[in-house]
Amino acid sequence: MRQDDYRDMDLVAQLDCIFNPRAVAVIGASANPEKPGFMCMTSLVRDGFKGKIYPVNPGLSELFGLKAYPSILAIPEDIDLAVVVIPAEQTISVIEECIVKGIKGAILVSAGFREVGSETGLSLQATLQEIANRGGIKIVGPNTLGLINPRANLNATFQPGLGLSKIGNVSVVSQSGGMCIYLINALTSNNVGISKVMGIGNRCNLDFDEVVAYLAQDNETRVIVLYIEGIEQPKRLMRIARKVAKQKPILVYKGGRTQESNRATLSHTGALAGKYELYKAAFTQSGMMIVDTMTELVDMTKALVFQPSLASDRVAVLSLQAGPGIIIADKCREFGLRLAELSPTTRQRLRHFISPLLSIDSPVDMAWTGSNFDSSREILRAVLEDDGVDAVVVAFISFELSGELPKAIIDVARHSIKPILVCQGAPDAAASVTKALEDANIPVYPFPDRAVTGLAGLLRYGSILKTID
Amino acid sequence: MRQDDYRDMDLVAQLDCIFNPRAVAVIGASANPEKPGFMCMTSLVRDGFKGKIYPVNPGLSELFGLKAYPSILAIPEDIDLAVVVIPAEQTISVIEECIVKGIKGAILVSAGFREVGSETGLSLQATLQEIANRGGIKIVGPNTLGLINPRANLNATFQPGLGLSKIGNVSVVSQSGGMCIYLINALTSNNVGISKVMGIGNRCNLDFDEVVAYLAQDNETRVIVLYIEGIEQPKRLMRIARKVAKQKPILVYKGGRTQESNRATLSHTGALAGKYELYKAAFTQSGMMIVDTMTELVDMTKALVFQPSLASDRVAVLSLQAGPGIIIADKCREFGLRLAELSPTTRQRLRHFISPLLSIDSPVDMAWTGSNFDSSREILRAVLEDDGVDAVVVAFISFELSGELPKAIIDVARHSIKPILVCQGAPDAAASVTKALEDANIPVYPFPDRAVTGLAGLLRYGSILKTID
Repeated sequence: MRQDDYRDMDLVAQLDCIFNPRAVAVIGASANPEKPGFMCMTSLVRDGFKGKIYPVNPGLSELFGLKAYPSILAIPEDIDLAVVVIPAEQTISVIEECIVKGIKGAILVSAGFREVGSETGLSLQATLQEIANRGGIKIVGPNTLGLINPRANLNATFQPGLGLSKIGNVSVVSQSGGMCIYLINALTSNNVGISKVMGIGNRCNLDFDEVVAYLAQDNETRVIVLYIEGIEQPKRLMRIARKVAKQKPILVYKGGRTQESNRATLSHTGALAGKYELYKAAFTQSGMMIVDTMTELVDMTKALVFQPSLASDRVAVLSLQAGPGIIIADKCREFGLRLAELSPTTRQRLRHFISPLLSIDSPVDMAWTGSNFDSSREILRAVLEDDGVDAVVVAFISFELSGELPKAIIDVARHSIKPILVCQGAPDAAASVTKALEDANIPVYPFPDRAVTGLAGLLRYGSILKTID
Repeated sequence: MRQDDYRDMDLVAQLDCIFNPRAVAVIGASANPEKPGFMCMTSLVRDGFKGKIYPVNPGLSELFGLKAYPSILAIPEDIDLAVVVIPAEQTISVIEECIVKGIKGAILVSAGFREVGSETGLSLQATLQEIANRGGIKIVGPNTLGLINPRANLNATFQPGLGLSKIGNVSVVSQSGGMCIYLINALTSNNVGISKVMGIGNRCNLDFDEVVAYLAQDNETRVIVLYIEGIEQPKRLMRIARKVAKQKPILVYKGGRTQESNRATLSHTGALAGKYELYKAAFTQSGMMIVDTMTELVDMTKALVFQPSLASDRVAVLSLQAGPGIIIADKCREFGLRLAELSPTTRQRLRHFISPLLSIDSPVDMAWTGSNFDSSREILRAVLEDDGVDAVVVAFISFELSGELPKAIIDVARHSIKPILVCQGAPDAAASVTKALEDANIPVYPFPDRAVTGLAGLLRYGSILKTID
């Protein structure tokens, strides 16, 4: 990412202020638990935001034990970020005050702009855009959930709890606030942590391309996930994506794929979703990875955040139980991955541990060797050291007699640059095994076919790295 | 299912004895924690089997505080089921003793039969089959995990803990023991309970068609799930399936879909997997539902176990957040479901609660109405009472201001015969909401697209009911 692409706006510094504010004001903070202005205060206070919080409401002197101010201009200190939760028609003057105050960014939770489709809504948003651009402030929204940065316990949304999401290296930018929450939940419930999440709503003067440019240089972000319904200037995003995709994977879930749902996206964030196939082809050409289902999104993201990409497609499959190994082999073929042919040397090394009655062609049938640390380690080493193997999937069920295998996987993974993915079908008791593996950056999947989806993600990103210039 | 299909064997009574034994003997019970014979004892004792347990081992007088016997014939009481964990070459004489003892079924955990491919293995299995058929005993396996019936706390496998699986109405029959465990885990971790699970291994003299015939008349089984690699007499299964499918759905995951994995299935349970497309066409014609991924299997099973099938395809989508509603609409089209056109009367009823700024075309944008029980209930009622609606999907995110919606869903579902499915993207705190909904037989999905997979399962089964004669 070269700075000069977004030089005029000094975009990186500005978005850094928005994602890592030292002080946040809530304009329209409320004491009524049924108001979004109360929820926004709850999110900041209860999730433990580490910076300063200033409630703004002319009718209050105090809220959540914090001094309240009649206006943003009455606050004596510097403010980096404003959360604005007031009726649409009052937002213009409030944003003007934010500009006077020198605030870098404002989250406009309020709805009633372009998405309504009325002349009033359209004109309000146009005015807002003009004022914001002139005043040098970035508006997140309007009609948005807001943003989170769990590393700073920052929850600038009306959904308390999101600021406590598992910390990690995936960032999400979404045109839908609802989908922000589904995506956070989908990722964290699969043990994938979050770097930053932003709902960008109607994209008044802050759009996908700009946030992607920021996340490209953000060291805490390793994978970028976008939920897109429709954008007016897809070429701007495509141009940036071509550059960013060389550094980090960008996965895209496209909502609004049919005529009926297009109608819904129009009244959602005021954008026409456009023909899905066109988006898909154009985005793919620009190095973005279009996913079809949310399960695919989660599985590929998990592989990409933990493991290196795949330049070639030869997969060795090891399994303690035959059935799961067979499903993995099936799915490898479906996803365009090849089963590795093991070399004579490797086969000889494997036969030292594996009975001649059992298969050492992929899938390698490890049978009962999982109970022995040294055997498990030597089998894994033999396969990883084979020049004909690009990646390894290991499938096992955690129980008393397979307890040494995960330890051996963690041990050999330390010295291997080849991707290793695990599939573990286990009762809940094995959560500690999953945790130990994932703490060692080895992604674990609950079903055999989902592990192969993860691998397919590594291969797809590998081929993007080879073809994008 | 007419009894006369399997009259000669009195199959139902025999399998009932095997799934609900009053007394179980473990032949090859061991005091060595590294032996499968120890694990089998642990499974029965620790998971709390409610009947009697008899360890059989000539070298022991006691095991797990239970009197041990030198042979099955030395046990003074009746035995319904034997778990056999001894080397393959000793099994023939042991099965002969089981026949003398009048035992109805034996689980043969031991490997070393047809799956080995050697002359010894093939001949051992052939002898076993002949003896068993003549003696009227059913052999589960050989080369199998065994079976569970959580209602009886029966765990007749070498994997302790499985007997404590969540109790429910899905039964699984699998050619792979590993896949039994993955499937149990996949279902129960998605809150779908288990009726009975059997790993049938090499299918010596008990095959898929017979277990399906038994499960057809089992009142505790509402959905049947099969994991099949390859069978010699697919027509027998197809003939039974055509009858059973009229009473309960049969879902099939087919493993061994490619040439490479076929090779693996051969050494797994001694069956050639056969061309996937042929199986798929033949099984579909017989009313079985072939699924492509394990996620699809879980999602369809969950819908089918909780909800009635769909005779027609018009879906109303209600969503508190626009994005998830759009994804549901997209996926409905992909799965061949139509978005319902609401009648003028329904639209009028909805407008009473929903602002004119928001959409009441599917997806209906419920926005903030989720905080009000009466509004939520009236919106749901209006849609369910529309003759142009066959099923309803409701998507919401659980938080303080949507707490009344799930209560309203549970309330209206009591009086509705139309399927209702829920999609809830929520932090972990909302697990109690999911539980309340699923206790009321309303399936809950974590991603919008997965709820539509569930619906597609209801429609597919509905069309099977219409086309199978």
